[in-house]
Amino acid sequence: MARRELKQERAERTRAMVVEAAADVFGQLGFAGASVSKIADRAGVTLGAVYFHFRSKDELARHIVSRQPELVVPPHSSQGLQHAIDVTLTWAYQLPVDPFLRAGARLVWEQEQFVPREENSHQQWTSIMADNLRAAQARRELKASTDIEAVARLVVNACTGAQMHSYVETVHTDLPNRVAEMWQCLLPAIAVPSALSRISIDESRGRAG
Amino acid sequence: MARRELKQERAERTRAMVVEAAADVFGQLGFAGASVSKIADRAGVTLGAVYFHFRSKDELARHIVSRQPELVVPPHSSQGLQHAIDVTLTWAYQLPVDPFLRAGARLVWEQEQFVPREENSHQQWTSIMADNLRAAQARRELKASTDIEAVARLVVNACTGAQMHSYVETVHTDLPNRVAEMWQCLLPAIAVPSALSRISIDESRGRAG
Repeated sequence: MARRELKQERAERTRAMVVEAAADVFGQLGFAGASVSKIADRAGVTLGAVYFHFRSKDELARHIVSRQPELVVPPHSSQGLQHAIDVTLTWAYQLPVDPFLRAGARLVWEQEQFVPREENSHQQWTSIMADNLRAAQARRELKASTDIEAVARLVVNACTGAQMHSYVETVHTDLPNRVAEMWQCLLPAIAVPSALSRISIDESRGRAG
Repeated sequence: MARRELKQERAERTRAMVVEAAADVFGQLGFAGASVSKIADRAGVTLGAVYFHFRSKDELARHIVSRQPELVVPPHSSQGLQHAIDVTLTWAYQLPVDPFLRAGARLVWEQEQFVPREENSHQQWTSIMADNLRAAQARRELKASTDIEAVARLVVNACTGAQMHSYVETVHTDLPNRVAEMWQCLLPAIAVPSALSRISIDESRGRAG
């Protein structure tokens, strides 16, 4: 293997270690409590190595927040309204065990310190949820009266509140249950009867196998 | 006025100043960032004066969190489902301008540090919302299929998420709008048609005059 490739491989490995360490540190200490030197220590690399890959603590935090949606991939293939539900159940199931999602949840209430207002995680998730609901609408699963954007905002708000309260009460253990319950309350308002009878909000939709 | 009464009056005034200062400090710095000495400084009293009234920073924070519901008194008289809605709209309207409610909102995600698990603000508000929904049920305003406890949890979760995201995006300015929108989405699932036609979710329900 050529020398340049070896060097690049090592750089990529270091970058991944830094991001992983940042997720741990942000998840434990939040944005205000974290520092680049704590992240370097946790990763076992020099300060210079962190700054080679990221310009600042802000950039590291933005990176972790912006990656959240791509980490949530439902284990069961689905479309339309079922997919919208599956995304939330998968997130709820993974959150307690995924350091990146835990960091994202911890950073959400400090994000005005490092994320431009229009790129915050609420906007990001609302836009994904609205896309999923539009797909559901195209499949004629939603009532004509459904306000897609409003429902998307409600789902994201309710999931945010659920994860906060679930953390305080059960360290996120009952989060899938709370998310399923949210859909149970909401579906009669938005889904047509034929869709309602097909849709599953069973928590296992968020788990592989 | 007798000497003892004067003394008691002065003690009560000091206590109120301490609580007010605590709300300011918690609202700005959160639980972790606050300290009894910062609160004493803000109140313009000695450390001893604070400790005369409150044993610890924890007790001050618990006091502020537990007082939240009594601060939210809808300006327009109402009952049942309308009252449930009015409580949330009043909270949404007062939050940006009331230092006690702002402190409560800021403390919500740190409360596992000072509130016993079963007394947290989520439980507190959910129980109030469930009572209001049960009153609505007694007035035959709710569909028979409505799961009161589940809807109460959803409303509290959605309000929590809405206030967090509204803070990041508009410093709480659009919160009444987000809360009204939540009810707009949710009501078709829970209210019978005759109630739906009477209920108002106009933001002005949360404002006096």
